[in-house]
Amino acid sequence: MLFAGTHLIVDLWHASNLDDLQLVEQALRDAASRAGATLLNIDLHHFSPNGGISGVAVLAESHISIHTWPEISYAAVDIFMCGAAQPHKAIEVLKGAFLPGHVTLAEHKRGVIL
Amino acid sequence: MLFAGTHLIVDLWHASNLDDLQLVEQALRDAASRAGATLLNIDLHHFSPNGGISGVAVLAESHISIHTWPEISYAAVDIFMCGAAQPHKAIEVLKGAFLPGHVTLAEHKRGVIL
Repeated sequence: MLFAGTHLIVDLWHASNLDDLQLVEQALRDAASRAGATLLNIDLHHFSPNGGISGVAVLAESHISIHTWPEISYAAVDIFMCGAAQPHKAIEVLKGAFLPGHVTLAEHKRGVIL
Repeated sequence: MLFAGTHLIVDLWHASNLDDLQLVEQALRDAASRAGATLLNIDLHHFSPNGGISGVAVLAESHISIHTWPEISYAAVDIFMCGAAQPHKAIEVLKGAFLPGHVTLAEHKRGVIL
């Protein structure tokens, strides 16, 4: 099966550190590195001092995004990678950074050519 | 049902203009605007003169991302929005910009609290 990229939809529940901008940035950098991806740019936004953070790491292999809702201890993460990168390896970094009590994962192959 | 955000996974097939950086940027801006979202930043990368483009629009309501593979006339788009934004409206902008022959859509509610 040929496909353009692997897209992991990761939900972190009962998670910590979701309002820590520096930790979110480091997690994105480490997640990209662990997956063997090439980081092109990181864009981070903190919506209020103890509020949610949006972060997007644009990669040569696509992107990793995170949106956090500290008030419900939840973060929505997408890990989208093409080529030789290993997106599943990024999940371990996220678990170490945000210490979720529960993680769900869905995997989509994007751009499948039969 | 309470949920954190709506995530639309949109695949454009038999699409055009996938190597046009200016058009991709305008499509992201128009898609955010049409959905009633607030654009915070756009990051664009063109991997070779006639090659694929990655673009991410970071929104106050989450993000829109696009990754294009002109060689197979395919683009993978994600429209992730929380709050009062109307993510489905962004799809019409994408169809107008990239003239796909075929579109697939999957909708995920992210961060559902029962």
